Formats: sequence, C-alpha cells, structure tokens
Amino acid sequence: MRKIVAIVGDSKIDKDGDKYRIAFETGKALVDNGYRIQSGGLAGVMEAAFAGAKASEKYKEGDTIAIIPSFDRTRKNEHADIVISTGMDMIRNAIVANADAVVAIGGGAGTLSEIAFAWPMLRLILAYDNVDGWSQKVAGTRLDNRIRYEDIPEDKVYAVSSPEEVIEYLNKYADKYTKYHKGIVL
Amino acid sequence: MRKIVAIVGDSKIDKDGDKYRIAFETGKALVDNGYRIQSGGLAGVMEAAFAGAKASEKYKEGDTIAIIPSFDRTRKNEHADIVISTGMDMIRNAIVANADAVVAIGGGAGTLSEIAFAWPMLRLILAYDNVDGWSQKVAGTRLDNRIRYEDIPEDKVYAVSSPEEVIEYLNKYADKYTKYHKGIVL
Amino acid sequence: MRKIVAIVGDSKIDKDGDKYRIAFETGKALVDNGYRIQSGGLAGVMEAAFAGAKASEKYKEGDTIAIIPSFDRTRKNEHADIVISTGMDMIRNAIVANADAVVAIGGGAGTLSEIAFAWPMLRLILAYDNVDGWSQKVAGTRLDNRIRYEDIPEDKVYAVSSPEEVIEYLNKYADKYTKYHKGIVL
Amino acid sequence: MRKIVAIVGDSKIDKDGDKYRIAFETGKALVDNGYRIQSGGLAGVMEAAFAGAKASEKYKEGDTIAIIPSFDRTRKNEHADIVISTGMDMIRNAIVANADAVVAIGGGAGTLSEIAFAWPMLRLILAYDNVDGWSQKVAGTRLDNRIRYEDIPEDKVYAVSSPEEVIEYLNKYADKYTKYHKGIVL
Repeated sequence: MRKIVAIVGDSKIDKDGDKYRIAFETGKALVDNGYRIQSGGLAGVMEAAFAGAKASEKYKEGDTIAIIPSFDRTRKNEHADIVISTGMDMIRNAIVANADAVVAIGGGAGTLSEIAFAWPMLRLILAYDNVDGWSQKVAGTRLDNRIRYEDIPEDKVYAVSSPEEVIEYLNKYADKYTKYHKGIVL
Repeated sequence: MRKIVAIVGDSKIDKDGDKYRIAFETGKALVDNGYRIQSGGLAGVMEAAFAGAKASEKYKEGDTIAIIPSFDRTRKNEHADIVISTGMDMIRNAIVANADAVVAIGGGAGTLSEIAFAWPMLRLILAYDNVDGWSQKVAGTRLDNRIRYEDIPEDKVYAVSSPEEVIEYLNKYADKYTKYHKGIVL
Repeated sequence: MRKIVAIVGDSKIDKDGDKYRIAFETGKALVDNGYRIQSGGLAGVMEAAFAGAKASEKYKEGDTIAIIPSFDRTRKNEHADIVISTGMDMIRNAIVANADAVVAIGGGAGTLSEIAFAWPMLRLILAYDNVDGWSQKVAGTRLDNRIRYEDIPEDKVYAVSSPEEVIEYLNKYADKYTKYHKGIVL
Repeated sequence: MRKIVAIVGDSKIDKDGDKYRIAFETGKALVDNGYRIQSGGLAGVMEAAFAGAKASEKYKEGDTIAIIPSFDRTRKNEHADIVISTGMDMIRNAIVANADAVVAIGGGAGTLSEIAFAWPMLRLILAYDNVDGWSQKVAGTRLDNRIRYEDIPEDKVYAVSSPEEVIEYLNKYADKYTKYHKGIVL
C-alpha cells in the first residue's frame, strides 16, 4: 500500500509567497516519490499541496484526499480527487492528523491542533522551520516528555526546510513510525 | 470527480453465501461503472465489496477506501487501498455513511446506524431486499416523514436486488441527490 | 454515582399530544427515582423530558444534560442545566446514546441512529410501544443476532408503555447492563 | 445557567507537587464562585481539580463533569459526578475544550490539542505561567493572528498564576466571550 502523508498549514496564504511555493513543491515531491496526500481539503496550504501533487509526472487521479469539515461534499478545493466529508467541522483535524506521516507548513491554531494530535497518535511529524507559524515554533522540539519510540531516541518533530528533506526523512523513518496508538486507558 | 459509494453490511458473512456474492458483484459493478467504494474497511461485506472492486477490469489502485475504527492503520482488510484511520471506533459509521450514495447489504445494528445517519444527511440510499438483515427491513420504506427532496416525491430507501439495479438507480439519481445536509439548527 | 438515562425521540411534537405527555412524565419519574437525564438538548421529546425532570420534587439544578450538535452553547432548550457542546452536528447522537440506559419515545431517523448505536455499545434500551415512530418498531425486538449478555438470555430492546415500566426495568436491569463496549478489533 | 469551566493539564502529576496544589485550589475556587468544572475525567490535573471542587463548601453533587475517552463509563477518576462517555478516545479533547472557558495547568501534547481547539472555537482561555508545560508556553500569547473579538483588542491566552486571578479573569471576561464558533465554511 502506498503511504499517505498529511499536509497541514495555513488556510489563507498568498499565491506568490513562500508558503504556497513550499506547499506546492512538497505536494509534488511526495507524489513523485509514491505517496498520496491528505489534507483538510480547503484553501491555502491544503490547496497548494494538492495543486503540486497534480503537477507531478507520476500523479494519478486519486492521489489527493480531502478530509473536509462539512457534510457538503462540494465544500472542498478544486484539486481534491477524493472527498471524505466528516460533518465534524474543525474536529476533523484529528482525522487529518491520523495519516502515516504529517508535514506542517506554517499554520495557526488549527494546524497546531493537528500537530498536537499527531504526537500522542505516535505519528512521524515533519515541520518546516523556514516559514512563520506553528511549524517553525515546534520544529526540532518534542511536544512533551513521553517516550514515543524506545528504538528512536532522537524522536522529535523533525525540522525540515525543503521538499528534499521531507523525502529524506520519510525514506529514513516512515517504516519505523508504525507503532500506532492503540487507545487511552486510565 | 468520480463519485464515491459506501457499501455497508454485515461484518461476519459466509464466503460461500449470497451476501458475499452480492457484495462482491456490487463492488465490481460499481468500479466497472466508474465509482469508487468506501466502507468501514473491516471484514464481511466490507471486504467482499473491496475484493469485487479489484476484480473489475477498470479497477485502479486507489478505488477502495477504508474508513476504519482504529488509530492503527493496519487494522483493515487486505483489499483496502486507501486507509482513513479515525480513532473513533464505531462512531466512524457516521463518516462511512457520508458518501455520495449508500448501498446496504444485510447488516446488523452497525449497518442500521449507517443507514439511519445517511437519511438525515440527505444521501441516496439503496438497500438489497433479497438478503436478511436491516437492508431488507428498510428497503422500499421512508425512515421518517421529513421531505428530503421536494423535487423527488418518490424519495425513499430504494429496494434493489441486483448490481444492475444498483447501477440503474445511481444513473438515475446520483446527480439529483446532492442537497447535502448543511447542519442542524435548533 | 447517580446513573444517567438518555431520552431520545422526535424533535418536533405537539405539546398537547401523547409524546409530550409521555416524555414529560418519563423525565419526571426518572428524577423522582434518582436518575439524571441526558438528551440531544433540542426541542420535542428532548425538551419535554427536561421539563418533566424539573417538575419532580426531587429535581436539583444539574439533573438535565444537553449534548448539543452545535459549538454554540446557547443552541439548547430552556430546561437544559448542563450543556455539553460538541460541534459534531448530528454525530453527537452517538454520544447521547452512550448513557447508562436509553429510553426511546417515538422518533425518526435521528432517534434510530441513537438506538442503533446503543445496541453495539451494549446499553440497556427501553422503547415505548404505544407511540408511533422507531421506538414502536423496535420495541420487543433484538437489533441483530449478537449475544450481548450471556447472563441475560432475554436481552432485547424492552417494550415499555408507561413511566412506571421504565422505572421497573431500570430497577431490574440497570446494574446488570454494565459490560460496556471495549472497542472494535478486526 | 451556571457556567462550565474546563480544566486541562498533565495526566500524570506528583500529588505533593505544585500542579496538584494549583489544580486542587483552582477547582475549589471555581466551585466557590459558582462554576461547574469539566475535564477529560482521568488522572493528574483532571483528578486534582475535581478533588478540589469537592472540597468547596459550595460543592454540590453534579459539579464535576468527566468527558472520558472510553465507551466504558467506569474509566474515570473517583471524583467525577457526571460521566459523558464518548468512545472517541483522545478526540474527546475537542469536546472538553468546548466549555464556557478553559483553564490550562501545565500539560503535554493532549493539553496542547485542547488549547489549540479552544482558540478557533472562540473560547476564553486562561493559562498558568508558573508551572512547566504548554500552559506556560502559550500564556500571554495569541495562538494565531485572527481577530477573535473586535471588541476585545487585548484578546489572547491570558496568563494567570493563582486561583484568584482565574476568578478575576472569569468575572471580567466570561460574559464577553460568548461569540461561539458557528462552523467553518470554505
């Protein structure tokens, strides 16, 4: 099975800005390297990443998965191939974060909620440190003191600054980060 | 965009039985006709439908979408191409039901919850009436008195008894049932 | 701890009708007998049951719990003491059903989704058989063939026709139905 | 209606430490001042706050509301009066955050997810800055650049360092922070 990488970040960005370019190139690089992409399915980074995915020569219809807030399946960006309509409004962030890996590009509180969930869900998290927002603030840090993987002592939110680095980290770690969360007990 | 049809039904079935055959053939017919399939991603009808999808000559990797209860992305049947891990246990039924259309094949209380959600979500619902379980009980009925579509006075849970009928109803109605639920207000 | 009983049913009812009276009297009887009530917190049966709760001599502020669809904590009926705002729209039905016991009074598809969830969640379910709607249709039946409680061979959706019967069933069964659902595995 | 304040923070704390004392005293002060408390219902800060609530002279049974991850209503701390069992595992954090106000005491990634949700849900957020963890990191900051309340230009995560300050902020702001989130649109 092809792995699915969540791309999370600002929902309002400038199309001429760094975040658009980075999201676009990251989306493209992920599809170039055989990954599918999932996102919240709306605008900004979510849309740019999907547009990038489609610009890949390896792109196939179905590579962009929009996990949207609404019950209304038309409330998604134009590059979404597959719509998962949740009806759970922003709480769908928890499902977006629940991918094989998460890549954060800037982002406000919504993005922060996705990163915050990805951590106890034991996901591989990559965060761009060269754009402002929560990805930069958490890049290179551990969100708390829990030992998520005893065999990965360097575990943290890994800082990245280019699509090439995203791919490098995925190549190195994606198969190791598979100790998926099994549920909370008191 | 290709439409996505949810297939719901019993999670434990006999591989030699009618339900397996019907689920398999329905999955195949749906992919033959250009639809993607989503299900709860586990065993029984969910698995048979995905196996059928893969038997279609038009099948492309990515046509089977498993919306699973667990955070653990490996807890899905072997025919799932795309895993959406929710971590919401059976409450993910509400998201499974949230497709462009729902086809029910037998089913117990879990399936009933999916049908029950699909109705107020204003989805097109097809139910096999030639297998036992909830699909048979609700086939041909309206789940309550609300007018879901003023322009579709015959609206109900449509009874079907073959994959051909499933495709006929989809051809006839899939584009009409798009008044997606916009949210509850008091 | 005082047990919490969910009351589910039609969201639009006539204030002079049987459903209003039954919901009111059931709410009152439950508080008379030491239970708290939870509901979806909106109108109809949900409101009547809360009004009845408040008419009990044993009523204390805090006895009516509204688990509402909205993020907006003001979108609830006037008799709700405690608001749990979910932001999950109708998917909050799954949480409403997740009480110590569920009592159904009529109801359309939304109520059906609550009953359908309560069954695999292994809850005690009581359904009025003397009002039209889903409570009547499922009263006295089993929603599927699973053995929910080996020590309760008579297990089913118990039919009731008066608040006194509701209390009788709760007295008899509430302490036995405590094998709460522990989560799905493939 | 009495307002409900969510208390969020570390799930593992030392009973002799500052966090226990602060959570206990905050829980007590809140009930002293007429508030109910909701939390995730498990251990650590969640339990200490409930214990404090019960130590208030104004405490009435029903003042502590546990919104728990499990379907199993017994998986809660001993001081919980009202159990809302969600079955949504850690995703219930989104519902915990959905109170009239949120007070954070330390906390790891789970607490961070609650704070991150409370911000776009437009809730009043208070964060202790004298204990380590996410409450300290976000105290006095804005989680992103959105204007949540035009009439509250000083809006931010307010830093607090004592229960008295918590009550002061609630007295000053609780009635102003009522522009509850109405749902996301694209």
